[in-house]
Amino acid sequence: MRASVLRDGRMIYRDDVPDPVPESGQVLVGVQACGICGSDLHFVAHGAKVVELTERMTGGTGGMGIDLNRDVFMGHEFCAEILEAGPDTKTHPPGTLVTSIPVLLSARGFEPIVYSNNTIGGYAERMLLSAPLLVPIPNGLDFKHAALTEPMAVGLHAVNKSNIQPGETALVLGCGPIGISIIAALRLRGVKTIVASDFSSKRRQLAAVMGAHQTVDPAENSPFDTVKAAVVFEAIGVPGIIDDVMRRARRATRLIVVGVCMEPDTVHPFFAAPKEINIQFVVTYDPTEFADSLRAIAEGDIDVSPLITGEVSLDEVGQAFDDLADPERHCKILVMP
Amino acid sequence: MRASVLRDGRMIYRDDVPDPVPESGQVLVGVQACGICGSDLHFVAHGAKVVELTERMTGGTGGMGIDLNRDVFMGHEFCAEILEAGPDTKTHPPGTLVTSIPVLLSARGFEPIVYSNNTIGGYAERMLLSAPLLVPIPNGLDFKHAALTEPMAVGLHAVNKSNIQPGETALVLGCGPIGISIIAALRLRGVKTIVASDFSSKRRQLAAVMGAHQTVDPAENSPFDTVKAAVVFEAIGVPGIIDDVMRRARRATRLIVVGVCMEPDTVHPFFAAPKEINIQFVVTYDPTEFADSLRAIAEGDIDVSPLITGEVSLDEVGQAFDDLADPERHCKILVMP
Repeated sequence: MRASVLRDGRMIYRDDVPDPVPESGQVLVGVQACGICGSDLHFVAHGAKVVELTERMTGGTGGMGIDLNRDVFMGHEFCAEILEAGPDTKTHPPGTLVTSIPVLLSARGFEPIVYSNNTIGGYAERMLLSAPLLVPIPNGLDFKHAALTEPMAVGLHAVNKSNIQPGETALVLGCGPIGISIIAALRLRGVKTIVASDFSSKRRQLAAVMGAHQTVDPAENSPFDTVKAAVVFEAIGVPGIIDDVMRRARRATRLIVVGVCMEPDTVHPFFAAPKEINIQFVVTYDPTEFADSLRAIAEGDIDVSPLITGEVSLDEVGQAFDDLADPERHCKILVMP
Repeated sequence: MRASVLRDGRMIYRDDVPDPVPESGQVLVGVQACGICGSDLHFVAHGAKVVELTERMTGGTGGMGIDLNRDVFMGHEFCAEILEAGPDTKTHPPGTLVTSIPVLLSARGFEPIVYSNNTIGGYAERMLLSAPLLVPIPNGLDFKHAALTEPMAVGLHAVNKSNIQPGETALVLGCGPIGISIIAALRLRGVKTIVASDFSSKRRQLAAVMGAHQTVDPAENSPFDTVKAAVVFEAIGVPGIIDDVMRRARRATRLIVVGVCMEPDTVHPFFAAPKEINIQFVVTYDPTEFADSLRAIAEGDIDVSPLITGEVSLDEVGQAFDDLADPERHCKILVMP
């Protein structure tokens, strides 16, 4: 079958990937759409670093188990159609549209469907999912919109962890897909003052469409001079941002770090101590938040259509990764196998 | 009058400091005892850096207002006797033993009694305090013990901010005076598993006396291999510790940073993100926690006597600062003017 895989630091088109075969408890699905995530772009650029840091963090107890000299499958923001259940596996009938948290259960345990030499992700014609984790797409919801369940769940989780109250002011630094999903979740929670900051005018426009009450171009004004925020969401993920927030934010700020900075970062604890700043690092979401995200999209509480700025086929994924570097052109590109 | 002041990076004895005169709302007190705080040692060693970082943090809006080319008064852990009230000032009668949060109210606003070219601190025969902030020492409590109200309040505040529950395991990194005050506050809160780590055997002994259930010598075993802590208290304050906790701690760890690292510090957000670590920076305490601290000492819930390892006169303060560098000899030295 066809797929796009990471090889030698580039996304490569292949038409010779063997079809995966579902075990008991698994389901073979046909991918309808899969969003390209910023973390995939990070991994293509910094894969060796990610693997090395994970080894350092986990010590000898098992890193990611990824060999970058072999092809790596990716794609974790998918909507798919059920084709065939594994042996003795009860699930929805073939043809049902589903999504799932990106985890594959098997007799050997579970494996994230994020980066893997073996487990096929959403940048492929077909992949395996776990029957107990399937979430059917409600009738009538566009499968392209359903594919955004996963990134919108990331924002929902970040906002839930912040425990922000409607009367508190939120500042969102960075209006890429994650920043946008945070803005949508803040709006959904009823937060009355949402300020969004990004250098790109296109992204600021999208932030306003998705719910930001005010946008700031940091090239013109520091967002910290513009607004006194109780909660700051960091969705940029480059070195220096955390320290800048610690230096500029007001007393008792809660900083939610959603942007994953892959590089060493320098901070001054001296800035954070007198202001008793709290930093909450977050990643992903839980299954309930994933289901909440799909429900919010299906019921029209979050309109994800403005996020989708491109659609490509499997042989165009490499080019799409390059195109996503330009914030004025793209937010979310869907791969349509 | 006599005092010990910071001059050219050393604590110097002076006998020619003019007596301060209380304004309305202020009280002249005679210092009975004043503890030497680790932050004073930091300031003597890194004063220029502290002043510079404060300027960077506050921008043009006013730094510490300290000129290191002039003498600096210090000493913020004091117990004192009321000598004379300012004009039209109602307060306790002369001879009353009191303590106070280290803040001086005046017609010009308020000034911390921590580092100042003008406001005299506890390393002096006499100083000014603010009548509304005075807390009388309960009958019979040794004034030397009352002088430890302030450092014990720091630990109480850190523990309160952590919101640790009795069934959660606490790991305290560093058993200097702040680490010890955290241990005492954890014990007071009923935490059932308190593990303390320090390279110094003397400090580990003191940690056990003050309430640690288990102590670890990090030269022999990593505390992270020894215990699965829900809450980690960082009371060391040197570069590298925060990153080490982020790398080694378990998922959802709450890290309370109490040690003020004055230097730039390198961290890997990548370690903290997948584990959703929370970092709470803390400093000082509120007036209620200060009063709670004095009450706990006065009622015998916290016995501070093991902390006091030395007493010096005003002309011995410089030597005491040097002696405090050796963790095997000293925990808290009291200056007795």
